[in-house]
Amino acid sequence: MTALPGAVLAVGDELLLGDIVNGNAAWLGAALAGCGVQVVHSACVGDDLGRLGVAVRRAMEDASVVVLTGGLGPTVDDLTREAVAAVAGVPLDRRPELETRLRQRVSAAGQVLEDLPRAVWKQADLPRGATALDNPVGTAPGFRIEIDGRLVFALPGPPHEMQAVVRAHVLEELAARSGSRLTTRTLRCAGVGEATVAERVEAAVELPPGVTLAYLAGEGIVRVRLTTADDPAVLAPALAAARRALGADVWGDDDDTQAAVVGSLLRQAGHTVATAESLTGGLVGAAFCATPGISDVYRGGLIVYATDSKQSLAGVDPQILAEHGAVSAQTARSLAAGAREVLAADWGVATTGVAGPDPQEGKPVGTVHVAVAGPPGTWDLALRLPGDRERVRNRTVTAALDLLRRCLQHPDAPPYALG
Amino acid sequence: MTALPGAVLAVGDELLLGDIVNGNAAWLGAALAGCGVQVVHSACVGDDLGRLGVAVRRAMEDASVVVLTGGLGPTVDDLTREAVAAVAGVPLDRRPELETRLRQRVSAAGQVLEDLPRAVWKQADLPRGATALDNPVGTAPGFRIEIDGRLVFALPGPPHEMQAVVRAHVLEELAARSGSRLTTRTLRCAGVGEATVAERVEAAVELPPGVTLAYLAGEGIVRVRLTTADDPAVLAPALAAARRALGADVWGDDDDTQAAVVGSLLRQAGHTVATAESLTGGLVGAAFCATPGISDVYRGGLIVYATDSKQSLAGVDPQILAEHGAVSAQTARSLAAGAREVLAADWGVATTGVAGPDPQEGKPVGTVHVAVAGPPGTWDLALRLPGDRERVRNRTVTAALDLLRRCLQHPDAPPYALG
Repeated sequence: MTALPGAVLAVGDELLLGDIVNGNAAWLGAALAGCGVQVVHSACVGDDLGRLGVAVRRAMEDASVVVLTGGLGPTVDDLTREAVAAVAGVPLDRRPELETRLRQRVSAAGQVLEDLPRAVWKQADLPRGATALDNPVGTAPGFRIEIDGRLVFALPGPPHEMQAVVRAHVLEELAARSGSRLTTRTLRCAGVGEATVAERVEAAVELPPGVTLAYLAGEGIVRVRLTTADDPAVLAPALAAARRALGADVWGDDDDTQAAVVGSLLRQAGHTVATAESLTGGLVGAAFCATPGISDVYRGGLIVYATDSKQSLAGVDPQILAEHGAVSAQTARSLAAGAREVLAADWGVATTGVAGPDPQEGKPVGTVHVAVAGPPGTWDLALRLPGDRERVRNRTVTAALDLLRRCLQHPDAPPYALG
Repeated sequence: MTALPGAVLAVGDELLLGDIVNGNAAWLGAALAGCGVQVVHSACVGDDLGRLGVAVRRAMEDASVVVLTGGLGPTVDDLTREAVAAVAGVPLDRRPELETRLRQRVSAAGQVLEDLPRAVWKQADLPRGATALDNPVGTAPGFRIEIDGRLVFALPGPPHEMQAVVRAHVLEELAARSGSRLTTRTLRCAGVGEATVAERVEAAVELPPGVTLAYLAGEGIVRVRLTTADDPAVLAPALAAARRALGADVWGDDDDTQAAVVGSLLRQAGHTVATAESLTGGLVGAAFCATPGISDVYRGGLIVYATDSKQSLAGVDPQILAEHGAVSAQTARSLAAGAREVLAADWGVATTGVAGPDPQEGKPVGTVHVAVAGPPGTWDLALRLPGDRERVRNRTVTAALDLLRRCLQHPDAPPYALG
């Protein structure tokens, strides 16, 4: 695998102070890898002309492609243009075409030009020799310049602007320059641990030369990733073997989300779903609603946080609550059935459990029951999840959506091969 | 403000590839600032001995305190010990006391020593002259070593382990060494833009010498931050003046969350709340349920995603839906009243709107109505929110919780001074 060495520099005091998390670096790391640029250097730099210059020079020592994000705005703290120009040894020029474009954007936003601080116009300046990269979703354009044989891209800092400029102006050129386009295929699994996934894949998959294999685990999901810089076709047999070895534990491919996969399965069946949530408090519903176009299959849900609301809203038999408690398989099953009935949906999915920090009904933190009710019957799953309140809740969402997915895909078999 | 210059190095190929986001850097940036160390250099480094050495040397050029995270585990890819030892020019020594501790941990975890790969024992190696930093929540200890007058800390990579070691072994020493402890006070505002906040604060607040002021905006929340390295008492008058200037737009202090603040206000009033959500699909409920101990005031909610569920679950008059549409102030008000009634709560809070990507009922993406119904009456707020589906939904949650907060704090006045 031959890849160009790349560097990512995220600019802004707020990154160093920890006011915001540097999500741009992760996004760029993955996006650049896809077009044959391997990030070997990634740094945050404050809003300081001297430090910015040092950072760009160091990045150019390590990499032939340097991508900066941030520092292109209109304030005195925005110094990326100045720093790159200084490193390149060229002046900044006001570009009339950028000035015109800026004027249009300002007017379109209903602002009055005369009211704007003079500094706004620095967004029309570029280092001499640089090419402007139009920003389809914001005012500050990016730019591209070659310095000492290195290709330097300066991109806006807001993630959606940065991503839009990269997609429109950066990826194609980098793929052409690296001459290699990394192809990555991912299988997404749930209901199974990373060690088991690795064991099964390694027993079944013979990796062709030039293909690498990685496992990534988090929030109850294990990803199996195959990567090659060669002909993408070499991945197909390995991917198929891994998929066979993992069987029903695979719920999706590549960028799939659980809610979107479940949504497609429901749509194929002409079915709808409703939710009833206790410890997740709406997160399962929110996962569905994060998916554009889900309204044809997701009907809605009940958040049954107070114990009496489990009875009043979802119709859980008070005797079940008295005998087994709110945190029980019986309550989860009854909630799933209640959601289905109250919302007139084909399927109901429910969660109940102890998110912490304190035990409840004598049950320890991490005790969770999820259940699914649908035309073929009702299933439930008892879990003991590690971690704090947030992790327990997130893993519960994963488990609930995965149980529903298994019931939709394998309605005639128990959803988990127990034992 | 005199602060020691600090550097943060996060170690691991997975950071460069974008498989995980570098949350450790942000956490450390804020934690170090608190004890008088200003991070001026922050980088990610891959699992490569040569590059790690270069990165540590560069960090030592820029900073007198260098904090590494990651690369302390038991695999061949874990090279932080080796790299730091090489930079210091010292060998690695096996430490018997760490070996013993590791043995105890392994046995306590129910694992059999003989089954473990030999590489596990490298976690008992430290550069000569280094001090071990006990890891209270994991197997790999951190360490601390002085190199050329720089203080270098190597910490485990998993965030909860890193944080535990920093709290136990790093912060006190750094505060003592820097001789300054930064004190930060934050006011949190909503329902008002960053520019307006800045204008009002700057007209009202005279900053004492040695106090810095910053504004941070995101997801509809603006934070005003005052920082000093001097006596924390100097912040009080400036903070009070800013609070007066911002009036009812301030909803919280420091690390407050909206849901926790609203929860406290409800608890003080002896009141409860319920939710009815369309476009947010459970996010408002999930925000409440993320707060430990909320069950005494949050009753539960309705996720009324399908239009007919707004009627069947929350009792919205079909005539309102027919006349004004599902995305309307009238529907939001009726949903809030419905949530209140169905869940027998004192207050109801509701959301409806167009999250995108497509318009709905002829209303553009970002059209949002939130409403609150309670003992003193019903209020609603119409919003036009920018951004994509995720941003629209998140800002709607902010607006809904803020409207409820205003109604609880100022039941006799309209919640927003309009115009």
